[in-house]
Amino acid sequence: MRRLDIFGLLKRDMDFIEQELYGSINAEEPLVNETALHLLKAGGKRLRPVFVLLGGKFGNYDLERLKHVAVPLELIHSASLVHDDVIDDAQTRRGKPTVKAQWDNRIAMYTGDYIYGRALVMAAELRNPEIHRILSKAMVQMSIGEMEQIRDFFNCEQTVRNYLLRIRRKTALLIAISCQLGAIAAEAPREVSRLLYSYGYNVGMAFQIQDDLLDLFGSEKQIGKPPGSDMRQGNITLPVLFALQEEDIRDELLREIGDIHQADGQGDATRAIALIKKSGGSAKAEALADRYIQKALDALDQLPNTKSKKTLRDIAHFITKRSH
Amino acid sequence: MRRLDIFGLLKRDMDFIEQELYGSINAEEPLVNETALHLLKAGGKRLRPVFVLLGGKFGNYDLERLKHVAVPLELIHSASLVHDDVIDDAQTRRGKPTVKAQWDNRIAMYTGDYIYGRALVMAAELRNPEIHRILSKAMVQMSIGEMEQIRDFFNCEQTVRNYLLRIRRKTALLIAISCQLGAIAAEAPREVSRLLYSYGYNVGMAFQIQDDLLDLFGSEKQIGKPPGSDMRQGNITLPVLFALQEEDIRDELLREIGDIHQADGQGDATRAIALIKKSGGSAKAEALADRYIQKALDALDQLPNTKSKKTLRDIAHFITKRSH
Repeated sequence: MRRLDIFGLLKRDMDFIEQELYGSINAEEPLVNETALHLLKAGGKRLRPVFVLLGGKFGNYDLERLKHVAVPLELIHSASLVHDDVIDDAQTRRGKPTVKAQWDNRIAMYTGDYIYGRALVMAAELRNPEIHRILSKAMVQMSIGEMEQIRDFFNCEQTVRNYLLRIRRKTALLIAISCQLGAIAAEAPREVSRLLYSYGYNVGMAFQIQDDLLDLFGSEKQIGKPPGSDMRQGNITLPVLFALQEEDIRDELLREIGDIHQADGQGDATRAIALIKKSGGSAKAEALADRYIQKALDALDQLPNTKSKKTLRDIAHFITKRSH
Repeated sequence: MRRLDIFGLLKRDMDFIEQELYGSINAEEPLVNETALHLLKAGGKRLRPVFVLLGGKFGNYDLERLKHVAVPLELIHSASLVHDDVIDDAQTRRGKPTVKAQWDNRIAMYTGDYIYGRALVMAAELRNPEIHRILSKAMVQMSIGEMEQIRDFFNCEQTVRNYLLRIRRKTALLIAISCQLGAIAAEAPREVSRLLYSYGYNVGMAFQIQDDLLDLFGSEKQIGKPPGSDMRQGNITLPVLFALQEEDIRDELLREIGDIHQADGQGDATRAIALIKKSGGSAKAEALADRYIQKALDALDQLPNTKSKKTLRDIAHFITKRSH
């Protein structure tokens, strides 16, 4: 999803946000600047700021105000990614950790803390306590989601409901409040921000389900890493859970996942992926993602017809087609 | 510094804060509850809430309002300690990390993030953007301080100014804003909160210098770990920097620190500590701590005479005597 293709409408404003993003993490301390800037420059789709700006279009669109939620939301997302990296780094390193590796991990953790802090400083400048409350609550839920993911590693007995609750916290909530806070910062009517929250939540759920499908069935070129890395890490996703519900698949799939678990991150997921493909798990996950997209579109339908609404619809359609 | 001895005045209110502290981290998720509660129950002096309440006594003392800064400040302090532990854990573990160890580290990092989030949620309930701004800025500075500490590990060329800037960020700032925010939440006059900030800042600086002296010269029983653990970790503190300024000590001390560095956390600091003791480094550090305490007392002198002021003076005196 290249930014310029889909977000031509917002190009100039997003360039401004990009600059503000860099400006926001500016520190007098060179080391901090280096690590935090490096991170942000690694890029990303800037999906959350895009949602903020599109949400803002439903009220008094004022970029100077909107940046105070657009930038913090991207920062919070980035900080959560750095903290994920700290963890991943630690896991793949074998044998005695090098000083260099240690250093990086320490720095990465505090870089995450620093970026969270910067996000909150920038949001506080808006002097709107409701925005602060919503942002802080999202941070709480995200950290619970991360812990739940760890708790549920290699747990094949977890329910589909567990999975959905987890991705709600990990992904959907931040996208939901991106849409919502854009509208709130632009002083749009309460009903509009509520509908945008619903749109964002459902799009976020679909987005994560598609992401989990891609991790299993995408090509290495498409996803930038060998397929099945979620499973090797212990992250049991929706297609796996659906496949485990099928009696003729379950036992063999459990054995494969057990072997992968034993191999401690180095196992081969090819056979497990083939089993899931053979099962109805993949199609059922796709269908659930589509249902979330449909709910997102239903929420959109109740909003006034604007250019921004059309873009939000395009984004929803784009997400459904991501893995095809 | 047992809480009950010195803070008899506040005993009942501190018991209330203690309960609120536990209540604040309550999560529907059992795993989160377990780790976060475990942490808080490990205790501590609750110095930051004490400063908040004492600061609040200079305005309209309202415990229901004050808890919204007292609890977040203790939570931010606790979260920063968890993140320190993540790091320490990683450093002392040799060879291939066990799954169990990994688990703990991941959980510890996200427990820290969770507690930061809870702190901000509780502070946001006060609906005072200034308080949010001050808290967020402190979080930013604290993370920079932690990164500076890592950057300066085993750097014997760092200046005393470097050290002072670092402990300002790491320790003094949070104590300063504890005193300040107590006054702000109680709507005390601006000049009062400014003086309390100054008191807290100077007490915080003295506190950290004394802590660093204790780490070198305290008994194992007194500090709960073998002396010199800062140095083994690479943390070059004020007495060391002062000792390095003495020509007849410098070369031998540099060699000792070099050896400790080589030993990667397992070195023997006995000889280095003896050298620092022989030098004037320890006395010079004590003298600087005393100067900070004097500045704290000067700020106090300008505040109205209250019982709370007397307690703040007692705390300042207590800190100077900590290492004797």
